[in-house]
Order: sequence, then structure tokens, then C-alpha cells
Amino acid sequence: MGRVTVRRPVLRIRDGEVTRRPDALAAEEPMEIRVDGRPLTVTMRTPGDDFDLAVGFLVSEGVVHARDHVVAARYCAGATDEGTNTYNVVDVQLDPAVSAPHASLERSFYTTSSCGVCGKASLDAVRTSSTWKVADDPLRVSPALLASLPDRLRAAQRVFDRTGGLHAAGLFSATGELLVLKEDVGRHNAVDKVIGHALRDDLLPLRETILVVSGRASFELVQKAVMAGVPLLAAVSAPSSLAADLAEETNLTLVGFLRGASMNVYAGSERVTAP
Amino acid sequence: MGRVTVRRPVLRIRDGEVTRRPDALAAEEPMEIRVDGRPLTVTMRTPGDDFDLAVGFLVSEGVVHARDHVVAARYCAGATDEGTNTYNVVDVQLDPAVSAPHASLERSFYTTSSCGVCGKASLDAVRTSSTWKVADDPLRVSPALLASLPDRLRAAQRVFDRTGGLHAAGLFSATGELLVLKEDVGRHNAVDKVIGHALRDDLLPLRETILVVSGRASFELVQKAVMAGVPLLAAVSAPSSLAADLAEETNLTLVGFLRGASMNVYAGSERVTAP
Repeated sequence: MGRVTVRRPVLRIRDGEVTRRPDALAAEEPMEIRVDGRPLTVTMRTPGDDFDLAVGFLVSEGVVHARDHVVAARYCAGATDEGTNTYNVVDVQLDPAVSAPHASLERSFYTTSSCGVCGKASLDAVRTSSTWKVADDPLRVSPALLASLPDRLRAAQRVFDRTGGLHAAGLFSATGELLVLKEDVGRHNAVDKVIGHALRDDLLPLRETILVVSGRASFELVQKAVMAGVPLLAAVSAPSSLAADLAEETNLTLVGFLRGASMNVYAGSERVTAP
Repeated sequence: MGRVTVRRPVLRIRDGEVTRRPDALAAEEPMEIRVDGRPLTVTMRTPGDDFDLAVGFLVSEGVVHARDHVVAARYCAGATDEGTNTYNVVDVQLDPAVSAPHASLERSFYTTSSCGVCGKASLDAVRTSSTWKVADDPLRVSPALLASLPDRLRAAQRVFDRTGGLHAAGLFSATGELLVLKEDVGRHNAVDKVIGHALRDDLLPLRETILVVSGRASFELVQKAVMAGVPLLAAVSAPSSLAADLAEETNLTLVGFLRGASMNVYAGSERVTAP
């Protein structure tokens, strides 16, 4: 695609020294996801792995969970009035047996009719809509293995070092092998790209895997892990309260502040074996 | 509110030492924004300053831009089937003279009918919908003053030190005085809270002010600054390509990687006076 980074002139000020030079920025462009031709959502993302992003988003939202649920994904040629292709509109064609997504997808995991809008309703919505259960996943990892993953993730990041502007999400095996790495200006997009890639390889549910993210762990990221059947989510920074609540409720192991030989385990600590 | 942080037990692993102790996490809860009773969007936010968040969101989206556009903001008492109040649904009553927001607000800044979905369309949408122009804003600041702001922001953050999980947005005067600081699990929410607070104080457009954010600068954050009439946005981390494009197109000054005595100026460098 050639659009993962964009070079721009920048004025650098370093201790009073002013220089002008080109700098690489992480590319950001809107992408519309359509399902069977119907617009569903728009996300600001870093171009690349767009089909994985679209399909992974549909997994995260509970629309699909198996490879044969997706018949095709393609860029819409007629996305503009002039009929040109901006490569920013992706249409996902579902198997006719799959139910079309709810019109207001954004709200579906945050509210239910019984309780209105609250954290508890959000937890219930994820629990009841997930096809996979991670509670019985036999994954067991040592703190030493977990501690090694952020460095492996960082070493494999191609774009971050040039821009400092991309989040990474990496899927690892139980023995610490990097299975897939994706980068994006949005953490949630990086995770959706990983999940979409996994669906394409027919790997769902992602049993006995570890998902590592470069930033914080929000409710939304735990939701995505649960929906893909990932039993352990590890974040380099802090989790939110609702992320920890959802992890506990679904028996997902949630690790935060994974730095050096240190980490905090917020839920599912039975999967982190004593050092 | 008492919900800005939540205490939870956590397993801490430090160089092989395992301890169990309570830890404070940044609270995250869904909040629905309604306008004149009609649901508009749901955002995951840290409770607190909810009316500022709702109103600031409406400023960012071009629905309101003056204090008298908002008649009232209130929690919906009947937000659940049982009629109880979760304090997670905020209804904003607009002045009858103000046009109701477009149904698909999320898409309005990312797409226009003429060009489909692309970065250029996103830039055009912000430029044509903003009431304020920052191009002629006379703000001038020295690199030394800019360099002092992240420490002032951090010193004023009440919750971050306890949780490590909150983004901050701070509005500063041209002389570096902190006018308002807001924290949230979401960067965009922290900025909306600042803008909503400013609208309530009848301070829009925010001429000759500096908005400092603790994380990265995305297209969305530059959009919010432009819509509130802020002439300078400074981020501690990297901007995206589209953030820099929008700053350049609207003559907003965009500073990134603001750390110590170093910074990069991506657009509007005439406002950063020679050191």
C-alpha cells in the first residue's frame, strides 16, 4: 500500500537548536466497513491489513466467528461519486446463513434493555454473545515467559521505530512464539487486525494463546479477546476497572504493567504459574 | 461521584516476589449521550464531569458553539426499565433555534458525499463545519514555555499517580497558567470535558490558549481543538499524518514529542518563537 507512513517536513527543537528536516508519521485514514453493501461503521486506521481489520471487527462484535461465515471481502470500486476507488471502503460479504449485524453495533455491547446503560450490562452483553468460553482453557505460563513478550513484540514492530506513533498487538503461542503482529494508530484496530488474520487462517477460537498489546487494557480490548477465545491478555500499561471486571467474569487472565520482570495480574491468576 | 477509581485485589509479581494487595484502577463505565431525549452515541468514559463531556462532545461535532445553545443537561432518571438512575445517561436539551445533530454523527467528519471516505474529505468536513478560524490567532509562545507544560499538567493530575491509567488534557493560557485540567480513560473524552467546561464558562472560541494532551495527537484531537477555536495543540507523543494535515489546513499549530527541552513542530511553526 505504501501508506503506512507519510513523510512530512518538521521543525525540530532540541535544547534551543532548531532544525528543519523530514520526519515519518504514522498514516491515519478513515475506513468504512460495509456488510453486504450496507455501511456499518467508520474507523480511523493505519492503512494495511484492511480486510483483516474489517473481519476482525465483525468477530469482536459477535457477527462472525468461523472462516466460512465470510464469503468475501473487497474494496468498493464505486466508493465515490466519480466511481473511483479510495481503498477506504471495505465490503464484507457474509454467508447467507449468518445474521446481519444489528444497526447500532456500537451500542450493542454497552447496553441491554433490562438494565439501561451501565458497566454490568456491558459485561452481561459480552458474556451472553460470546461463542467461546475461555474458562476451561488449559494455558499456563510462567512470569518469566510473560516478561519476555514485550521485548519480542517491540523487536518485531517495523513501523513504530520510525514514527513512535503506532500501537502494536501481538499474538503469541503458549511457548512464546510470535504468531502474528499487527500495528495501527488505534489499539483496537491493531487487535481487530490480529483477530481477522486468525479467522482467515481458521484459528478461532484462539485457545492457549497470549495476546500482548502495547498500551492500556480497556473494556473493549478484553471484549475482543473474549470474542476470539483468547485466554490471556497482557498489556504494557494499566487496565481499567471494567476491563478487570470483564476478565474476572469471563475467566480471562488479565495482566497489566508488564515491564521488565514486573507485572500485575488482575484476574485469572491461576494461569500464571508461580515463579 | 466516588467512581473515578476502583480498588481491586491484584497479584503483584516483582522479580520473582509474589504479593497480593489492593490496587486502584481507573474507573471505566459506558455513558450514553442523548440530545433532546434522542440517543446519539455511547462512549466509554471515567465517571465525573459528565455534563462537560456531553456538551464538549457536541461542540467537537459542530452541534453547539455558544453557551446559550445549551438549555440544560441532566441525568435521565428513567434510564432503566425499573426507572432507576444509573448516572450513565445524560440528556442535553438544546435551544430550539439550534439544529438537531445529524443521525450518523460518527461519520459526518469522516465522509462527505462528494469524495466518499478519505482523509481529504475528513479535512474538508472539519474546515467547512467549524465556526471559528484559528488562522489569525495572535498566540506566540516560546519553546521554553511549551517545554514547561507537561510537568505542570502532570503535577496537577490527581488520579494518574494512583492508577497510571488516565489520560489528561489541560488548557493553558498564553503565559502558561493552567486554566482547566480533565482526566479520563479516553484521550478524546478528556479533551471533550475540557471543551465542555470552557463552553459552560462562555470561553469559546478559546483564542490564545494552548491545549496539552498526555498521549498521541490523532485527527480527532486536532478536530476537537479546531472546533473549539484552540490555536495550539501540544502532545507528549507522536501525531498521525492526518492530524498534521488537518493542523496545516486549518493553520493550527501542532507540537508533538513534547519532552524535556525537546519538541517537534508539525504545522503552524510561526506561533513558536525562536528560542
